[in-house]
Amino acid sequence: MTALRAAPEWRTAQWFNTTAPLSLEALRGQVVMVCAFQMLCPGCVSQGLPQAQRVEETFRGQDVRVIGLHTVFEHHEAMGPKALEAFLHEYKMTFPVGVDEPDGVGIPQTMRAYDMRGTPTTLLIDREGRLRRHAFGHLSDLQLGAEIMALLTEAPLAAVQGSTDGVCTPDGCS
Amino acid sequence: MTALRAAPEWRTAQWFNTTAPLSLEALRGQVVMVCAFQMLCPGCVSQGLPQAQRVEETFRGQDVRVIGLHTVFEHHEAMGPKALEAFLHEYKMTFPVGVDEPDGVGIPQTMRAYDMRGTPTTLLIDREGRLRRHAFGHLSDLQLGAEIMALLTEAPLAAVQGSTDGVCTPDGCS
Amino acid sequence: MTALRAAPEWRTAQWFNTTAPLSLEALRGQVVMVCAFQMLCPGCVSQGLPQAQRVEETFRGQDVRVIGLHTVFEHHEAMGPKALEAFLHEYKMTFPVGVDEPDGVGIPQTMRAYDMRGTPTTLLIDREGRLRRHAFGHLSDLQLGAEIMALLTEAPLAAVQGSTDGVCTPDGCS
Amino acid sequence: MTALRAAPEWRTAQWFNTTAPLSLEALRGQVVMVCAFQMLCPGCVSQGLPQAQRVEETFRGQDVRVIGLHTVFEHHEAMGPKALEAFLHEYKMTFPVGVDEPDGVGIPQTMRAYDMRGTPTTLLIDREGRLRRHAFGHLSDLQLGAEIMALLTEAPLAAVQGSTDGVCTPDGCS
Repeated sequence: MTALRAAPEWRTAQWFNTTAPLSLEALRGQVVMVCAFQMLCPGCVSQGLPQAQRVEETFRGQDVRVIGLHTVFEHHEAMGPKALEAFLHEYKMTFPVGVDEPDGVGIPQTMRAYDMRGTPTTLLIDREGRLRRHAFGHLSDLQLGAEIMALLTEAPLAAVQGSTDGVCTPDGCS
Repeated sequence: MTALRAAPEWRTAQWFNTTAPLSLEALRGQVVMVCAFQMLCPGCVSQGLPQAQRVEETFRGQDVRVIGLHTVFEHHEAMGPKALEAFLHEYKMTFPVGVDEPDGVGIPQTMRAYDMRGTPTTLLIDREGRLRRHAFGHLSDLQLGAEIMALLTEAPLAAVQGSTDGVCTPDGCS
Repeated sequence: MTALRAAPEWRTAQWFNTTAPLSLEALRGQVVMVCAFQMLCPGCVSQGLPQAQRVEETFRGQDVRVIGLHTVFEHHEAMGPKALEAFLHEYKMTFPVGVDEPDGVGIPQTMRAYDMRGTPTTLLIDREGRLRRHAFGHLSDLQLGAEIMALLTEAPLAAVQGSTDGVCTPDGCS
Repeated sequence: MTALRAAPEWRTAQWFNTTAPLSLEALRGQVVMVCAFQMLCPGCVSQGLPQAQRVEETFRGQDVRVIGLHTVFEHHEAMGPKALEAFLHEYKMTFPVGVDEPDGVGIPQTMRAYDMRGTPTTLLIDREGRLRRHAFGHLSDLQLGAEIMALLTEAPLAAVQGSTDGVCTPDGCS
């Protein structure tokens, strides 16, 4: 799996539902599901976000972290931090939500780094920080549940990778 | 039906989806359905507003006017006019929407005048401007369809009320 | 409305959920909604029959009668009276259901008389026994609620027609 | 996992949607999902069977077999083979369905062997033929998708168990 793309670190301006900002790096070892959304996107409100909340509840106690990412690329004035805070409160979303770092008034930085087409977008990142799924639109619950479990059952990093002390590569030995 | 309560005129600060402000008075002769909502109220987004849009489409061409009323009583900063405009655009709501006149930061004026308990609230006002239904929460489509039709089939004012020239009452004759 | 078609009397072999067979004739004066269905028709189970049950409950206490009509035109062996009885019990349907009189193994007699295209079909019959709506497939609840109420608000026969004692016509006086 | 219960072989009287009867034994090596249902059970029609069909489609091409089991324990006359055949045809169910062997007029034999409480019941049987999940009622798609994938990612029998030629145990060597 060495050819798999490493998921770029996200860039965020602010966080909700967490006492401290979260980095993707710090979640290494866990399976991460990112729900990229906009609070005024109908498909996010009716499908993407409720599904993220269901994942949060279904995999509670397992090595799965659900992260919301507010990737605002339109109606910037209507979807500022105050509005988002009220939205998360009213819709009772409990997972951490980061605000994708704005880049002027266009596509925000994380959205650009992942080359997302729009919202909702679902990302699955494995225990080693590699991007394993990038889906624009809606995945079925059956499919998503299966994919998360497939990543969960992959042995954690420490277990699958031997010690690298004293190994050799074409570049030399350590 | 003389004991029926006249529906108070609404007080609005701004309108969307209409070229000019609308008054309840000017809609006399038609059946008016008011959907009082807040754009960050989950029950409004999932039930009240889609139902209002269905009424708009089902009774098109008949004497029914659907009016949205944005009765913001919480999270005022998150539900300003810019946010509402974006919301109506994204959710493809096509009926006229008035912004209930704020009264400081609490209950807005029309909401107070009608003594609404919260959102969503459905009002039905008959051809003579009388309040015939005031429901907090959700009415079934069957019930709502039936109630609107019951009001529609009431003969318009002109037809049921004879001329008032020369009539007399205890207060005297005209 | 004299040009309206009189609804043909239904022909039935058996009844459920009623102590005695019902005739359309005997329901004169009431609004009758007929839900023609087959117990193995997916659209009937998911939409038509639940809607009929909602009508039964929404218009309870008003002059509306909901009638199920089991118009079996395929899989006759699988949808006999025993099967229908079990079905109505398990699905908790409470309105009267008549079994459309078979006509050999093809289209049953009432279905043929009304020239129905298939199931589910909804019929609305007014207080005077005239067929006012014949819809194949699904009507929305809003539309159906409105149509039933429109028929309900038509004055009953007795009220709109004066006494015929002593009246005269070109044919003579009574 | 040696303490896991081996799933009892099912006992069936007849099959649909397959050219030959299927035995659980013959499916060894694959993950088997059994949807035990009755064609007149509302929860089976609205939830259990559509879910089974979604599993069939979502895991197509993988080592998953979806099996319907018609466990009739009431209304026997209404749910005979002819009725079931029509039902499966109308509802477009494509996975193999076995008829649980009747045991007089009460609980059929497989239902009894698995000690099922009613319908719908979902069973998951792993690649080694062990019963890993027995759920009465409804499992969410997320949960079910995850559980199936967890069983899929368990290495097949041949891979996890070395050759037993020439091995020794306290009982001797082979």
